[in-house]
Amino acid sequence: MTGDCIFCKIIKGEIKTDFVYENHDYVAFMDINPVAKGHILVIPKKHYPFFIDMPEKEFAEMNKVVHKLAIALKKATKTDYIHLGIEGTDVHHTHIHLVPRNEGDGLTTYKRTGYEEGEMDKYAEKIKSFL
Amino acid sequence: MTGDCIFCKIIKGEIKTDFVYENHDYVAFMDINPVAKGHILVIPKKHYPFFIDMPEKEFAEMNKVVHKLAIALKKATKTDYIHLGIEGTDVHHTHIHLVPRNEGDGLTTYKRTGYEEGEMDKYAEKIKSFL
Repeated sequence: MTGDCIFCKIIKGEIKTDFVYENHDYVAFMDINPVAKGHILVIPKKHYPFFIDMPEKEFAEMNKVVHKLAIALKKATKTDYIHLGIEGTDVHHTHIHLVPRNEGDGLTTYKRTGYEEGEMDKYAEKIKSFL
Repeated sequence: MTGDCIFCKIIKGEIKTDFVYENHDYVAFMDINPVAKGHILVIPKKHYPFFIDMPEKEFAEMNKVVHKLAIALKKATKTDYIHLGIEGTDVHHTHIHLVPRNEGDGLTTYKRTGYEEGEMDKYAEKIKSFL
């Protein structure tokens, strides 16, 4: 927990929000600036800046909750599918976005770049060297 | 498995790609059109169109692999953090993007919208009714 973390304040009830789910370790609530209506955030109660700071097992457990919520969210919004995203820039208390989406809505698309000749292989080798 | 699924073809070795990881159930390989250099995709070997089509437990297991890979990817690219995203639109074989990112790089940002008065509460109630 950090004193100025907005998500820690939400968990402590110091900032009012619309919760949709809570268990011992995780909560889910509505994003007040949604990418699409119904957009929710799932967070651990414990303050971890990024998802890789969580123990692996805890990250897996959180994703069980995420899976349940995504199914409910798809039913509630009657959309084609649920986008899942961990952005990480805005609030440094790890959070998983679940955004109801429809085919062709153009939300959350990625801008792509490319590699120089042989460069991708070098990245692959480098990544493998850390596994 | 579906005959025309590009990711199923990659798993079967019919399309050549740069793998960085493989175990019994999941593989990870380089995205040839990266959002940022080092961008990898993690997929289950079994063909599931969307992540909510996976059994919850299997999705959690995949995220253990994702967590390991994200740590290696951050070390390999020396970036500030790893973005995680499930887009779902392009290839309907569920896949998790891991994209190395730096603060302020402006990649993978969300466009936001809003709610009418009282509308967010209604969405929250609807979602809860499916949990």
